[in-house]
Amino acid sequence: MITLASDFGTPYPAAMKGVILARTDARLVDVGHDFPRQDVRTAAFWLREVLPYFPPAVHLAVVDPGVGTDRAAIVIRVGDHGLVGPDNGLLLPAARRLAKQADESDVEVFEYAYSDPDSATFHGRDVFAPAAAELHEVGVDAIETLDAVSPTNEYVERAFPEPQLFDDGAAGEVLVVDDFGNAITNIPGSVLDGLDTATVNGERVPVGGSFAAVDAGDRLLTVGSHGHVELAVNQGRGDEAFGRFVGDEVRLGFDG
Amino acid sequence: MITLASDFGTPYPAAMKGVILARTDARLVDVGHDFPRQDVRTAAFWLREVLPYFPPAVHLAVVDPGVGTDRAAIVIRVGDHGLVGPDNGLLLPAARRLAKQADESDVEVFEYAYSDPDSATFHGRDVFAPAAAELHEVGVDAIETLDAVSPTNEYVERAFPEPQLFDDGAAGEVLVVDDFGNAITNIPGSVLDGLDTATVNGERVPVGGSFAAVDAGDRLLTVGSHGHVELAVNQGRGDEAFGRFVGDEVRLGFDG
Amino acid sequence: MITLASDFGTPYPAAMKGVILARTDARLVDVGHDFPRQDVRTAAFWLREVLPYFPPAVHLAVVDPGVGTDRAAIVIRVGDHGLVGPDNGLLLPAARRLAKQADESDVEVFEYAYSDPDSATFHGRDVFAPAAAELHEVGVDAIETLDAVSPTNEYVERAFPEPQLFDDGAAGEVLVVDDFGNAITNIPGSVLDGLDTATVNGERVPVGGSFAAVDAGDRLLTVGSHGHVELAVNQGRGDEAFGRFVGDEVRLGFDG
Repeated sequence: MITLASDFGTPYPAAMKGVILARTDARLVDVGHDFPRQDVRTAAFWLREVLPYFPPAVHLAVVDPGVGTDRAAIVIRVGDHGLVGPDNGLLLPAARRLAKQADESDVEVFEYAYSDPDSATFHGRDVFAPAAAELHEVGVDAIETLDAVSPTNEYVERAFPEPQLFDDGAAGEVLVVDDFGNAITNIPGSVLDGLDTATVNGERVPVGGSFAAVDAGDRLLTVGSHGHVELAVNQGRGDEAFGRFVGDEVRLGFDG
Repeated sequence: MITLASDFGTPYPAAMKGVILARTDARLVDVGHDFPRQDVRTAAFWLREVLPYFPPAVHLAVVDPGVGTDRAAIVIRVGDHGLVGPDNGLLLPAARRLAKQADESDVEVFEYAYSDPDSATFHGRDVFAPAAAELHEVGVDAIETLDAVSPTNEYVERAFPEPQLFDDGAAGEVLVVDDFGNAITNIPGSVLDGLDTATVNGERVPVGGSFAAVDAGDRLLTVGSHGHVELAVNQGRGDEAFGRFVGDEVRLGFDG
Repeated sequence: MITLASDFGTPYPAAMKGVILARTDARLVDVGHDFPRQDVRTAAFWLREVLPYFPPAVHLAVVDPGVGTDRAAIVIRVGDHGLVGPDNGLLLPAARRLAKQADESDVEVFEYAYSDPDSATFHGRDVFAPAAAELHEVGVDAIETLDAVSPTNEYVERAFPEPQLFDDGAAGEVLVVDDFGNAITNIPGSVLDGLDTATVNGERVPVGGSFAAVDAGDRLLTVGSHGHVELAVNQGRGDEAFGRFVGDEVRLGFDG
């Protein structure tokens, strides 16, 4: 199985699929190709949240503002999972989550050498898709048998911003906004345990176990399926209702 | 085969697919994940129009404004088809259409019991996807062997609004607008048989057997692929040209 | 394998898939269903760029403003590839590219006869999907065994506009804009060989081997993955920054 994720829209992902299917008959599953363009952090977040639900697979992901520069291509092995993509931090959060989930698995990073791809602007098609197909064919456990592959300790790793947790509140930011308009923060959902209300940047709103805990159109704080606090509206868009978008500060208050 | 439909956009459907593929190697086919958010009626219409074209399958559909409340999860059996989703009326129109198509099939509804899913906001991943995988594995004909399943006669069924048919006209409403901008009404296409023109809310327009029956940019009434009257524009958007959107009244006149 | 491309959005492609899967268990791969509506030329361009990366397959493509008129349905054979769709020029550029790629392959065009489809507005579901399934089942090499098929030399072929190449410049137009906003011209990328800058409609901009050759937000000329000159912005939209959209004239100057 090979999963595919990118910010490519239509129809560039199909070129990657053609390249792969010319080399292997692996099952292909789209994680999504509508990730915000060039936004490595958002895609890294979603890969971390989604890939661990898959059975062992090769995961191809390309959000790649540095395409055509000298940024490396990498392959990561975590147990039976393989991840393939640009060396820009996109894959590491998912890899670390997969390792955590599997307890004993290590995160092993390899550089994938390539030269003179057909294009300097579409390595998804010309570098990463062939690499994913090749990795699928040899098997993740045999990564080292690929000529192009060599272990490395030098790779880009970006951390998500850490929230600050206080006795009477928390401070963080909006990490991503999902397609429903839920503004997902970096604050762990556990801070809301036992609360009926809390303040968001000074305004008091209900804490709800589900969106429908409040009337349609009303705001609430809830814990999303990823375990983070999110600013939401029942049947509406939390980002707009709270005026908080990606990167904006979120201060929660728990007193009173 | 498992089909998937939702209003989830990107990338939540991929989490459902991961969950399913960790449990079964069924073929997965997307019906679509861009249905209007929280709009149960529109998705119910499209499921009714699309699912009957599929061979026997498990159909997983989630448009679920009540996620996390006490609304039930249901499984429906119609002949060799199984449908899985929230008990909010989403699945019944498709189930009744499948039954009609198969002549002798009954619509059998079962409640699917669940408790304490990982999240209160993403039952697609935590309740319905596992249920669909489980149903696929045991087989639709063996629904009753699932511990979680019990027959029920209590479930939510919503009817689409009925049109009024007169000798010289018809009154109905726009049920849905498709991605081309065709405003699909609840009025049966047969009312247009033999007509060259008709009035729409007082304005006379041609009746055409195809979009190209009128010049590009011109309005027409036609019968869509679902058999309903639709307000259309050749190579344009009927909803905007007629100023009629979902839920708006449509009055057709056939005299003169 | 059957690939699918259309301008259908959601959920009409799923009806095509259901129809196909009721007739064959072929692997289905989406090329994309978000092509600009009714825009045959743009879809023809993308099919030409994408389909040659696939292994032998039946390629079903439907962008069809003439649906329901007397325009024919065609099937094209190019080596082991089969293409199915409306006779409006959509398929020929891809067929010719496939033939060129395979050296010795001919482009053989067949008319596919159909009568009285269920709908006059959705031949994708009622004509082309069944034809693609049928073609897949008999095999592309056995096209002639299909009753509905007869060779033809009369079919619609549209050429993309040809650029003009001068010693000190080139004149062409924007053929398509991709989802990143890159304005892809009909001018071959080779005209930029060895240049550091060039003028676009009189304004001088850098020529870059990759988007990141200039700062984020800056404009550049580059050669896209299809081999054409494109007007681009690093991490931005070239169409908007240059004010050049589909069909607009592009004049490049190389002197000075």
